Amino acid sequence: MMNSTISLPEINLQKSRPSLHTPLHVYLEKLLDELRDQDDGAMANYIPELAKANPDWFGISICTADGEVYEAGDSDVPFTIQSMSKPLVYGQALDERSVETVMRRVGVEPSGEAFNSISLHPKTNCPLNPMINAGAITVTGLIQGSSEERRFQRIASKFGDFMGRRPELDVSVFESESATGHRNRAIAHMLRNFDLLEDPVEESLNVYFRQCSLLVNCRDLSVIGATLANSGVNPVTGIRALKDRHVPLVLSVMTSCGMYDFAGSWFYYAGIPAKSGVSGGIIGVLPGRLGIGVYSPRLDEMGNSVRGVKAITEVSRKFGLHLFNSPFAAGSVIRTSTFLGQTTSRQVRPASEARAIRQHGQRVRVMELQGDMRFSSLELLQRDTQADIDAGRHLLLDLRLVRRMDSGSLQMWTLIIRAAAAAGVRIGLSGLESESRLQQHLAHLADRVDLSHVMVFNDLDSALEWFEDDLLRKLAPDTTTDYLSHETALGDMLGNIGLNPTQCGRLEAVAQQHAYAIHEVICEQGARSDRVYFLAKGMVSVRLQTRSGASPRLAAFHAGMSFGELALIDGGTRSSSVIAESTCIVYELELSALEEVFEAEPEIKILLLTHFASDLARRLRQANREIAALVG
Amino acid sequence: MMNSTISLPEINLQKSRPSLHTPLHVYLEKLLDELRDQDDGAMANYIPELAKANPDWFGISICTADGEVYEAGDSDVPFTIQSMSKPLVYGQALDERSVETVMRRVGVEPSGEAFNSISLHPKTNCPLNPMINAGAITVTGLIQGSSEERRFQRIASKFGDFMGRRPELDVSVFESESATGHRNRAIAHMLRNFDLLEDPVEESLNVYFRQCSLLVNCRDLSVIGATLANSGVNPVTGIRALKDRHVPLVLSVMTSCGMYDFAGSWFYYAGIPAKSGVSGGIIGVLPGRLGIGVYSPRLDEMGNSVRGVKAITEVSRKFGLHLFNSPFAAGSVIRTSTFLGQTTSRQVRPASEARAIRQHGQRVRVMELQGDMRFSSLELLQRDTQADIDAGRHLLLDLRLVRRMDSGSLQMWTLIIRAAAAAGVRIGLSGLESESRLQQHLAHLADRVDLSHVMVFNDLDSALEWFEDDLLRKLAPDTTTDYLSHETALGDMLGNIGLNPTQCGRLEAVAQQHAYAIHEVICEQGARSDRVYFLAKGMVSVRLQTRSGASPRLAAFHAGMSFGELALIDGGTRSSSVIAESTCIVYELELSALEEVFEAEPEIKILLLTHFASDLARRLRQANREIAALVG
Repeated sequence: MMNSTISLPEINLQKSRPSLHTPLHVYLEKLLDELRDQDDGAMANYIPELAKANPDWFGISICTADGEVYEAGDSDVPFTIQSMSKPLVYGQALDERSVETVMRRVGVEPSGEAFNSISLHPKTNCPLNPMINAGAITVTGLIQGSSEERRFQRIASKFGDFMGRRPELDVSVFESESATGHRNRAIAHMLRNFDLLEDPVEESLNVYFRQCSLLVNCRDLSVIGATLANSGVNPVTGIRALKDRHVPLVLSVMTSCGMYDFAGSWFYYAGIPAKSGVSGGIIGVLPGRLGIGVYSPRLDEMGNSVRGVKAITEVSRKFGLHLFNSPFAAGSVIRTSTFLGQTTSRQVRPASEARAIRQHGQRVRVMELQGDMRFSSLELLQRDTQADIDAGRHLLLDLRLVRRMDSGSLQMWTLIIRAAAAAGVRIGLSGLESESRLQQHLAHLADRVDLSHVMVFNDLDSALEWFEDDLLRKLAPDTTTDYLSHETALGDMLGNIGLNPTQCGRLEAVAQQHAYAIHEVICEQGARSDRVYFLAKGMVSVRLQTRSGASPRLAAFHAGMSFGELALIDGGTRSSSVIAESTCIVYELELSALEEVFEAEPEIKILLLTHFASDLARRLRQANREIAALVG
Repeated sequence: MMNSTISLPEINLQKSRPSLHTPLHVYLEKLLDELRDQDDGAMANYIPELAKANPDWFGISICTADGEVYEAGDSDVPFTIQSMSKPLVYGQALDERSVETVMRRVGVEPSGEAFNSISLHPKTNCPLNPMINAGAITVTGLIQGSSEERRFQRIASKFGDFMGRRPELDVSVFESESATGHRNRAIAHMLRNFDLLEDPVEESLNVYFRQCSLLVNCRDLSVIGATLANSGVNPVTGIRALKDRHVPLVLSVMTSCGMYDFAGSWFYYAGIPAKSGVSGGIIGVLPGRLGIGVYSPRLDEMGNSVRGVKAITEVSRKFGLHLFNSPFAAGSVIRTSTFLGQTTSRQVRPASEARAIRQHGQRVRVMELQGDMRFSSLELLQRDTQADIDAGRHLLLDLRLVRRMDSGSLQMWTLIIRAAAAAGVRIGLSGLESESRLQQHLAHLADRVDLSHVMVFNDLDSALEWFEDDLLRKLAPDTTTDYLSHETALGDMLGNIGLNPTQCGRLEAVAQQHAYAIHEVICEQGARSDRVYFLAKGMVSVRLQTRSGASPRLAAFHAGMSFGELALIDGGTRSSSVIAESTCIVYELELSALEEVFEAEPEIKILLLTHFASDLARRLRQANREIAALVG
């Protein structure tokens, strides 16, 4: 036999924060080591103060779209944000002023020229895009505020939302930029000439110089990237930094214009929307997935960090992060597709009803959906349900395993719902989370579309039961037993099991009749199993009390059926609770009284045991079928 | 009672092709109607032959990445492919010549100039990108072939792979282009000057003119797009048109340079990599999802189809198809996370063993994974398993619900496997499809990494059983019963149930002993239930024969246990098969013989029924626990 007193070394069961040596941390450290001997490139010299950085500094940080940060190397060394401020302020301008207002002043076409070119569009006189200085200065001029200081504070505060901490100003870099920024001053006055900047020009220019001189580190860059990857919400703090609908626009200009004259090649090789700055940093964004920040001050001819470009490109290559890299098709949005009767509710039904449901179940398609709902997954669904809709078959769609829905998928739901209405087909939806996007969408839709054919159920089990009942009503509207009002005599129930009238009489003599109100507990999980029950009227459900608070329904019984049979078989305690789902009348047979009856007539025990074992066997078979269906 | 003879209107059960009026078809028709009155723009006139098209033609087609086509309007009107040929021939050149060779001649930076500009890079003298004519003519010059005709045929054949049918040449457009293509002729000679084209120049130019004059329709454009969306494999024909690894590169140049001077704005608003042609067509590609083709000949100033741009932008807006539109985070890659003992194998074990497994099960983490495996999902996995690995806990990972793995995720698997090895932790993997990418990756990895800690199982059930057995062996190495060699006497088994020696003797007298070889069927699904079995030696499994050919294991029994009890309870036929999993010795008690014994001593029947019912109840409880775990 098992000797369970032998004990093994103890396991540390504390739920701890992941340590700082996950496989990904180890990989990033190794990557930096491999690239550290790359010392090509030169320090930026057009802003004298920038040349003072240590050229060997090298850091990398990845922040996932759910806020987990992986850092390696000099990831906390501060440097000025420089041009990496441009997409953030561009986003801020879109949020504050509207896309139309901003687009009237700054285009979104790549310039094919250097970052400090003036590049105004020959016809409109507008800067070609917001990632060149002319465009960025114009965009900064759009940020609202009654003074230079206020406008700067608004920008710094916005950067704080993106980073999760308030950035400080590097005064010496700011003064150095301001003192030597003749070209930017020329650009600003040209912009004033075309009424793209308002007076005083020097004020907007100062805000721009200060915005570029805010201090960040590598970790901040990755969090900024993750905020853009997470639809504009900083995943570490939960604070929204940019409106959802403007995120694709900011990422689009980063894609086409973010890496100076290297934008095309960058996207070709790395495939990650990014923005670099002359201080040596790069912010990369993989939408929905992660932000990545690198810092290494030596720059190539186009003004991008040499080791930074190599590091992100290598991470992208290694892990296949190119945005266009073999993406997966929507695939199997439909997890199972059966008919009513093949998938059954946990309502235990008389054999004749169960047979009728199996026989006519092809009137209802039952589909379990899974995964994320986007246009492509709904396209598959509408394609696969078309034959059902054409055949006039109702649809029962379970969405319990559906994770997220985007707005495009809601438009497809509308199309499917309309098609079903036109064909006179019901759509049952189960497993929707409350306040889900689809629930809200249905509420909006109800104002302008007739949704009387759409039914929403808590879970698949209750949806199946409704469709089964509906089918039975249609099959035999007059003959279906009304279990809730009809009362079955104990003698009839025992007779059905095979007891003769004398045997019935013996049990009737010791039975106790009890009435229960709806929702009352008839027997409780964990209580002693000391009696068996015969349900004379009403409905009960067998429910498992779980630690999570959920109480899934294991079975349901209606008048004429028995439960609690384990009292007779192995005693012990109840493994689940039985709850009255309506007003109920129950006959209860206590074990002590039964034992006396059995002593007098063992045949009664054999008949009861055979009945209960048969019942258990049937339920086990059904459970096995259900498991087989669940595991596909 | 149910009257199952009442019949409902018949359902058409034929599995039919989806009809041509799915909700998406209906939507596309409506979209064309809404945009039909847009008659801005002008017909291309620089190739006289193009001006002969009907300016009102308007068609749209969507082809999904799995090859379903939705068409509306003039989707079968032929027109010449023009500049939409450029990404296809660029991909062909990458396939035939290598990325390095092609990149030495043509860059990938947007030009910021018109499509017919010469745009050579000031330093390298190379065309800036392959979507302007200078770049495209250079790329066509790279296609191999011993004559003009052969090179053209190679290109036409490649287009056939993309489209799924061989395109024809519009001779009059070709002659018109050739006769009037002075600017392209100038470009070609300039390219020859820089040794980017070889002699004879006129030959390359003619191939280029012919390539542009191949006839396609809207449907073809969508299939070409879907081929690019489907990693280079035409999803309708299954033929590969472009190497997997070159697809991201082609899509990258389409993204940065595909829509002439409108590329930045196009991506900003529509967010779909695309290429337009002067004949009025546009190919759009949503990687992993779909291709879209539109055709309407009136062009805007930049040479893009006016209604085409509007149609794709509207489809993108409506269904949220912008590539950067609120993408979903990787989300719940971990479907369930439990310990051994919370999730159990179907091996039916004595109570003491089951208790020991529950008690010490925290030595093994059991996780069911789901969804697509990419870098982000594996990042989550390595994060969540780090505490387990730190605690020296083994990992059992079930991959049955995992759909696809990309190459980046395989690199992450390597990192996790190495971390587990370093910590001395086992990794069990179950549910991998044979020939899966991970299986192949493990085979490659085995050459350079010690994989003795990695174990691959067919399914979660057998993996759980192995880890349970392993745990029991470690807990009590000397005392665990060896069920395969040990033989249990029938009397001992009956005694354990509670029969006294006399009662045991009565059953022993009628029992028949049988031996079975491994894999032999002991009782077969569908056969008559006419006996119960007591297993004296060996192991058996209970399996369900399904229509799909799979035979999931419902339970497993070892020596000392009984099965086939339904014979005694409700007769009928066997609902599953029992297979010998080793050499077995079985005592079989026929129903007819049992009935005689019961007549003499009803108490024996009561004891057997109670035993069997108790067994059924225990298995039902376990099945219910399993269902509760499966439905989350």
